[in-house]
Amino acid sequence: MNTADLGLPVEVPSTALFTDQYELTMLQAALKAGTAERRSVFEVFTRRLPNGRRYGVVAGTGRVLDAVENFRFDEGVLGFLRERAVVDGRTLDWLADYRFSGDIWGYPEGEVYFPGSPIMRVEGSFAECVLLETVILSILNHDSAIAAAASRMSSAAGDRPLIEMGARRTHELSAVAASRAAYLGGFTSTSDLAAGFRYGIPTVGTSAHAFTLLHDTERDAFRAQVDSLGRGTTLLVDTYDVAEAVRTAVEVAGPELGAVRIDSGDLLLVAHRVRQQLDELGARDTKIIVTSDLDEYAIASLAAAPVDAYGVGTQLVTGSGHPTCSMVYKLVARAASADPAAPLVPVAKKSTGGKTSIGGRKWAARRVDAEGTAEAEVIGTGPVPAGLADRQLLVELVKGGDVVTREPLDVVRDRHIAARAGLPLSATQLSRGEPVIPTEYL
Amino acid sequence: MNTADLGLPVEVPSTALFTDQYELTMLQAALKAGTAERRSVFEVFTRRLPNGRRYGVVAGTGRVLDAVENFRFDEGVLGFLRERAVVDGRTLDWLADYRFSGDIWGYPEGEVYFPGSPIMRVEGSFAECVLLETVILSILNHDSAIAAAASRMSSAAGDRPLIEMGARRTHELSAVAASRAAYLGGFTSTSDLAAGFRYGIPTVGTSAHAFTLLHDTERDAFRAQVDSLGRGTTLLVDTYDVAEAVRTAVEVAGPELGAVRIDSGDLLLVAHRVRQQLDELGARDTKIIVTSDLDEYAIASLAAAPVDAYGVGTQLVTGSGHPTCSMVYKLVARAASADPAAPLVPVAKKSTGGKTSIGGRKWAARRVDAEGTAEAEVIGTGPVPAGLADRQLLVELVKGGDVVTREPLDVVRDRHIAARAGLPLSATQLSRGEPVIPTEYL
Repeated sequence: MNTADLGLPVEVPSTALFTDQYELTMLQAALKAGTAERRSVFEVFTRRLPNGRRYGVVAGTGRVLDAVENFRFDEGVLGFLRERAVVDGRTLDWLADYRFSGDIWGYPEGEVYFPGSPIMRVEGSFAECVLLETVILSILNHDSAIAAAASRMSSAAGDRPLIEMGARRTHELSAVAASRAAYLGGFTSTSDLAAGFRYGIPTVGTSAHAFTLLHDTERDAFRAQVDSLGRGTTLLVDTYDVAEAVRTAVEVAGPELGAVRIDSGDLLLVAHRVRQQLDELGARDTKIIVTSDLDEYAIASLAAAPVDAYGVGTQLVTGSGHPTCSMVYKLVARAASADPAAPLVPVAKKSTGGKTSIGGRKWAARRVDAEGTAEAEVIGTGPVPAGLADRQLLVELVKGGDVVTREPLDVVRDRHIAARAGLPLSATQLSRGEPVIPTEYL
Repeated sequence: MNTADLGLPVEVPSTALFTDQYELTMLQAALKAGTAERRSVFEVFTRRLPNGRRYGVVAGTGRVLDAVENFRFDEGVLGFLRERAVVDGRTLDWLADYRFSGDIWGYPEGEVYFPGSPIMRVEGSFAECVLLETVILSILNHDSAIAAAASRMSSAAGDRPLIEMGARRTHELSAVAASRAAYLGGFTSTSDLAAGFRYGIPTVGTSAHAFTLLHDTERDAFRAQVDSLGRGTTLLVDTYDVAEAVRTAVEVAGPELGAVRIDSGDLLLVAHRVRQQLDELGARDTKIIVTSDLDEYAIASLAAAPVDAYGVGTQLVTGSGHPTCSMVYKLVARAASADPAAPLVPVAKKSTGGKTSIGGRKWAARRVDAEGTAEAEVIGTGPVPAGLADRQLLVELVKGGDVVTREPLDVVRDRHIAARAGLPLSATQLSRGEPVIPTEYL
């Protein structure tokens, strides 16, 4: 276990450490009490969408499957737990053999979700399921938050490309997952090389203000960039005076100049002026890219402006005001004994302080109207009504410990676009509102 | 380079990939133009604190040093860049030999900062410095945002311990860095085993509602937990009825019960009732831990309540409303030629759309009043006034490519507490306000 080989600024040898300590102490106590092997059902859901949001986006499922496969307690991890006396020897022995052998069902990645949607269901012994809580929630809460913001931005952007460029505004590995979630939510490309490397997302980028400032004149900088990157490159035109920079850019690159980028100022106003200037200079095919603190509202406000592409950073990687979801991982049913044939008993927290939930192993289906538009998220614990049988949302992801569903990111991306298109039109309104369809419990 | 050995759900072989593509295309163009070797000075600073915050906290410096040391383009990375045609062959050859050989100065980790504070300064050739922009900003923007929230929470908590338990609400590796930043900002422990493993932070945890629900009765669950974890454990008392649970808890564990945890409801009211009940049951030394969606305001509102410790999750890992800082990495000076003896020329973006900055290599010092309390952050580009010479803030971190300052996390944590204590008293007011000291430019 030589983590230095990776050159990562973290040294975490296994996903098993992405775990809250109490998962292990619960395991220890349950092993001693003889309850650890009770068959159990855990469900991931959220009680509410972020304030004003009309739908959520399931993202991170593929990463969860990776994490579950790699959830092993090797000697490095066990040694740490032993040294810190986190759990007793019997528990360490149990962990040494750990391999998830249960089943996982879930909403397909890219699907939309609503309050109460059981977006993932984990079944197996209490012991093997409880351990996965923290890492599953970390991934789904982060990735779904970013994907939801991305989806709003991509619907606001319409057909115009969206570049994800938020790496510098979030943790360096969050950034990689955020690029993935952004792409899933409809973004086109990323500035983050790690995301290109890991997930095959198209990467883009040309230059920053520093490049202009490095050179003696803006003209020198533009010439250096065009000489090296070609006339199709994107020149950044707001280091000094925008109008002068646009004139210089077209003089240096000619009308074949690929694009200019504007990174400050009143983008609506500046984009109109720059478009007019480019057209007057004969650079009618030169595109305009804008990139300054954009969010879905700013993107929507530029819909009528002569803008060809948007670059989004901070607001994407911070979920546009909602950097996490409130997904929880709750025990909803468990056997009355360790006997594998013992029937499942629905369970739920009951105290009066909020945070209550509905016990029982659930199915979910999306009811549609005559035109095929979604009209309700229907969730139940009994038999599935005939009319909803073929509208069920949960699919099998892991069977007996083996991952049975792996999907390319492009498939997930296409699914999201289709799922969003199946919602009522008001789903993509940016104004605050209620979930666009109600959740009904049967 | 076998990333699977780590079992990480990410496969990123080097910190060199935590980089925006434009850093590499700028390098390519500068190499061709003969400007890549111009001596350059980049500075990290922020133009503003998050709205209403009175001070910022420098965090992530130690992680930056790790990242710089591991910033290498090995064959895996180069192969990716070649295959994608991100840059040309000459640039790939240059990258293959890359090793940062310049100097880095910075505010010591844990220090406080204000708008304009040059919290890090990177000097070397343009080529070697520009590449580090993305990863340096990722780390400092994330970690400083979390540390700032942690610092506000720890000042609100006073002497009561604070447990970091937000792993499930953020990316699984963000969570590890967030635990580190929380500890730096005054937290006491973490639930995150990976943070314990990587940074030696004390880890804690006992049980969740699932453990109670797993058992046939709450009494069975409490007995199982006490049998295994001892009477000193913390029992979670809000699964069903709090008063009944407290009675059961003391019956099962006796007055030696370590603590009870309350995770829902009106914590102020419930804490008073539970304290009274525990005292009446003779469990006067049993502590009360509260853990439900706390932020610095909720912590402050519980100051007069009989609470012994706080657990904080979501609001910590999301920076309590400000999940990122707005730090930038700007070229502030560069040589007029590639001659190593060429003098540095101050440079700065000049366009009218905001985002302007001040050119020139800066020093910073904190001026104090007669009582030793900070009264201004003084920043200049000329000679340091005699009265401020021994109040300078920047220290040498990397010299000629070698890390020269490594600090244990406890040293950084102590420094933060001391730096905060050196600010005017209003620094720790939670209400919105201006930066607690002004920034003056000389």
